[in-house]
Amino acid sequence: MTTPENAARHLQRMRDQRPLIHNITNYVAMDISANVLLALGASPAMIHANEEVEDFVSLSSAVVLNIGTLSPDWVEAMHRAGARARELDRPLVLDPVGAGATHYRTATALNIIQSGVTVVRGNASEIIALAGTGGRGTRGVDAADPVDEASTAAEALAREHGCVVAVTGEVDLVTDGRHTRVRVAGGSSLMGRVTAIGCSLSATVAAFVATADGETSPLAATTHALTCFAVAGKQAGAASPGPGSFRTAFLDALFALSPEMLKEKAEVLT
Amino acid sequence: MTTPENAARHLQRMRDQRPLIHNITNYVAMDISANVLLALGASPAMIHANEEVEDFVSLSSAVVLNIGTLSPDWVEAMHRAGARARELDRPLVLDPVGAGATHYRTATALNIIQSGVTVVRGNASEIIALAGTGGRGTRGVDAADPVDEASTAAEALAREHGCVVAVTGEVDLVTDGRHTRVRVAGGSSLMGRVTAIGCSLSATVAAFVATADGETSPLAATTHALTCFAVAGKQAGAASPGPGSFRTAFLDALFALSPEMLKEKAEVLT
Amino acid sequence: MTTPENAARHLQRMRDQRPLIHNITNYVAMDISANVLLALGASPAMIHANEEVEDFVSLSSAVVLNIGTLSPDWVEAMHRAGARARELDRPLVLDPVGAGATHYRTATALNIIQSGVTVVRGNASEIIALAGTGGRGTRGVDAADPVDEASTAAEALAREHGCVVAVTGEVDLVTDGRHTRVRVAGGSSLMGRVTAIGCSLSATVAAFVATADGETSPLAATTHALTCFAVAGKQAGAASPGPGSFRTAFLDALFALSPEMLKEKAEVLT
Repeated sequence: MTTPENAARHLQRMRDQRPLIHNITNYVAMDISANVLLALGASPAMIHANEEVEDFVSLSSAVVLNIGTLSPDWVEAMHRAGARARELDRPLVLDPVGAGATHYRTATALNIIQSGVTVVRGNASEIIALAGTGGRGTRGVDAADPVDEASTAAEALAREHGCVVAVTGEVDLVTDGRHTRVRVAGGSSLMGRVTAIGCSLSATVAAFVATADGETSPLAATTHALTCFAVAGKQAGAASPGPGSFRTAFLDALFALSPEMLKEKAEVLT
Repeated sequence: MTTPENAARHLQRMRDQRPLIHNITNYVAMDISANVLLALGASPAMIHANEEVEDFVSLSSAVVLNIGTLSPDWVEAMHRAGARARELDRPLVLDPVGAGATHYRTATALNIIQSGVTVVRGNASEIIALAGTGGRGTRGVDAADPVDEASTAAEALAREHGCVVAVTGEVDLVTDGRHTRVRVAGGSSLMGRVTAIGCSLSATVAAFVATADGETSPLAATTHALTCFAVAGKQAGAASPGPGSFRTAFLDALFALSPEMLKEKAEVLT
Repeated sequence: MTTPENAARHLQRMRDQRPLIHNITNYVAMDISANVLLALGASPAMIHANEEVEDFVSLSSAVVLNIGTLSPDWVEAMHRAGARARELDRPLVLDPVGAGATHYRTATALNIIQSGVTVVRGNASEIIALAGTGGRGTRGVDAADPVDEASTAAEALAREHGCVVAVTGEVDLVTDGRHTRVRVAGGSSLMGRVTAIGCSLSATVAAFVATADGETSPLAATTHALTCFAVAGKQAGAASPGPGSFRTAFLDALFALSPEMLKEKAEVLT
């Protein structure tokens, strides 16, 4: 169940456990992802060398693979890290940045998904590209919102690969292919004006999935992470005249986010 | 013509078109370049893998090659991206970071220029190194300002390679080898205390050259980009006690920059 | 001697000389390290290509090797830069990020130390891993603080390799194996909530060791750098509700740090 009460308890548990999140992420996202994890109370590491990537997975609580700035060595490192994470039963979150834009990134993302991941978090066009459901062709007449438009694609992708898929945008959608949950409202339009906020959300999803208790499914844990971003983002957005101050206020808001605030302000529609 | 009115119209056009700027840029500059482009209303991408760099050029509106943190694979990616951009007639902006400091970067920058670029943006010593005009030896008795000192070098470089050359510093200079335009005043001394502000200006030049209409030359488009930085930089500098707050205020100022403010505050001397 | 008066004079000398610091550092630390050096008044460069790394060492005042995001090419570049720095008698600072976590990084850090470095700056667990003194096994009954706990390891490492070792945490410790100095108080708990603050301290140590006069030992110079961070950190922490605003305030505080403030506020216990 993804009630605000559960999200609040999960935030507290995540902070108590301080999970170590192993990120193989893009160069643009490294600084903000590390700072978001630290602000929320998790512990980040960025490790990509093939010489050590498997060793490090065994120390970590979850692994994030983000294909934002690829190169062949890093693709190899992602496959090694992924294989080790599956072996050790560590949650694995994929952020398929730019899937659909070039063949290289679509193919890399699909290879990783086919090997097995816990959660995929992307924007609407990335998820549509990965599901191969044809994007705009699938949208109903009234589907003005791109996240809504990606709903069929997200469900198909989740069902086919047995994972959770989160499509984030103005309204976020989370599905495991059987249940679909939508969080409405929250966040800020300034989130789209700061680079790699989505990437740092993927890292946050990993921190929550890694600290889910026995009652909390990956679907619920993913929703809890999205809820934290929505509440902190809304609060930071209200206080910020532009994207420079938003970035600062957002990190402060994640740091100050209390279980009580989450309980009070979460707008989750299940 | 680079009147404030034209700069104002160009800013609006750039925001309406939201150009996708393909950056092969240095690690230090990635975060600030992406955030500057997003704040101004353009769309950034950082893509350097040889497996996808050509594919991505065809999706983009302009390409930035920045040699700040080189390695052989990236040099190859720059040549591939450059060749594809020329083939598709996409504007190509070179930022020759550190040219003159080592043989490797001087040679890399010169190779790229000789293959053809639209704009080179650098500081005085970089432009002097690339023109091979001998630097300090060329300065007149009264040339206290390094940008002024680089003026002959910039004109020679522009003429020889048929490109626009922008030398930025306290006073910026833009030339196509025939016409030389100078923007005086504006900016802030704190710009030199924040890393990669110059690199993010090169990315901004690409966004403006990519959205120039038929009446706007690359020389004028480059001047428009410099003018945005000067006006936003001056405003942010006035409100900031130090470089930390300047970086935040500068992104906010670029976001808030209106065509009206540009018209009113631009200090362009043609 | 590391009196507050000497630290104040050293800060002024460092700003007057504006040393060029050559960093081979991790991707996460590049932005904040460059911004910290610029804010304080030094000049940063990030250069790692084997094609130019030795050329650039000869232009620089000191070299920082930070193993935070390793790969084989970068390890080679670190060895080349290190060898050239020793040849030219340039100070060499090692930041052994994550030593002890994987064999690859422990071995890389030890190889660099064995070839000769001026200063090693790390946290308690890194220094314990490098000294091979067994960590927790060595702690006295009352050693609640991890830096205190690392004291024997730091002294052993410093003595064995003839270098200065700084262990930073809530209370920092600096030793050359014969003398051990401790700076108490200062700083802010928010420093641990911003990524790569420790890495940027290593870069700052390089700027101070590079500008030590004949009377100032590397031990004293390292203490001066730590003192700047402690005073600016304490000041920024007092003004910041969270890690986002702390990062901004810290850069402003380093920029505004005056020799007088250092003299007045430094809390160095020798």
